[in-house]
Amino acid sequence: MKPWKTLSRETILDCGRFLSVERHSVELPDGRVLNDWTWVIVPDYVNVLAVTPQQEFLCFRQTKYAAEGLTLAPVGGMIDAGEDPLTAAQRELREEMGYEAPHWVFLGQYANEANRGVATGYFYLALDCVPAEKAQSDDLEEQELLMLTQAELRAALLAGEFKIASWAANVALALVYLNEHNLDRS
Amino acid sequence: MKPWKTLSRETILDCGRFLSVERHSVELPDGRVLNDWTWVIVPDYVNVLAVTPQQEFLCFRQTKYAAEGLTLAPVGGMIDAGEDPLTAAQRELREEMGYEAPHWVFLGQYANEANRGVATGYFYLALDCVPAEKAQSDDLEEQELLMLTQAELRAALLAGEFKIASWAANVALALVYLNEHNLDRS
Repeated sequence: MKPWKTLSRETILDCGRFLSVERHSVELPDGRVLNDWTWVIVPDYVNVLAVTPQQEFLCFRQTKYAAEGLTLAPVGGMIDAGEDPLTAAQRELREEMGYEAPHWVFLGQYANEANRGVATGYFYLALDCVPAEKAQSDDLEEQELLMLTQAELRAALLAGEFKIASWAANVALALVYLNEHNLDRS
Repeated sequence: MKPWKTLSRETILDCGRFLSVERHSVELPDGRVLNDWTWVIVPDYVNVLAVTPQQEFLCFRQTKYAAEGLTLAPVGGMIDAGEDPLTAAQRELREEMGYEAPHWVFLGQYANEANRGVATGYFYLALDCVPAEKAQSDDLEEQELLMLTQAELRAALLAGEFKIASWAANVALALVYLNEHNLDRS
């Protein structure tokens, strides 16, 4: 199996750092060429499921433009220019949630949309989180910090309360990791 | 906590059914108005993690434009116009994989991107899948059908081999569901 080959790319919409759209010319393995394959670019981001030594799972209850009503959310945000994903994850945990962690598990990097790309998300599990000095949040949304048991977290996840796909992925991946490593005492 | 309110919307890029971009005017709960909030629209889709009565997990190994190299994938695809998500999920399982299932678990609906929307994904777990007459696939990618044990699936997931966020979400949510319902014999 061979990957598709990008022959050329052209920007067809430029809305600044938060969104641009390209048109790619793409060659398939059988030689066919698709001349109008659109590709979306928004900033790469991190998400972090944070857990305390007491096995409390830290989440926000908040609004988000793409979610109907209220949603639960792991902490996260955009990666700054030139910033390492782990550094961004540690910064977001400190800035937005007021916590820091000595142990970090990388749960993988994932493209947001299979055909259009959109962004790459880097997902983490932060273990043994303790309060740190909280920096100033730059989030536009109102949010409330929750501490859930693992049973409450699993129930909320399976009830669809994490309403963004990458957030559900982050939380579910962390739960599979904890179960696999027999760390799922709740 | 109040949601943001969409005051108006205007299409600023129309590439047909596969992609359009809107500019929204949005009012925040504190009264501020953002006049240039971009919103991306690509087709809604379904993903299905399929399991046989012998606890074999059906996945594709394939290429995908947004994934580097080869990736594992649950079966899935775009929802046709006017089609119910469950009907789309059953159609994709039959058309692309050649299986059908008597028992379906809905794992929730999720927006693809927290700020820009992009698409809504509907994720399913299909239990007791058996071979059906395979319809013609319309996929452009080459793909190979794999049957994994649950231990192999968990290992592949935690190794980041499902390289699209919504695919990792679908698989991880299904594993959390199976564990929660004590169906995770592997």
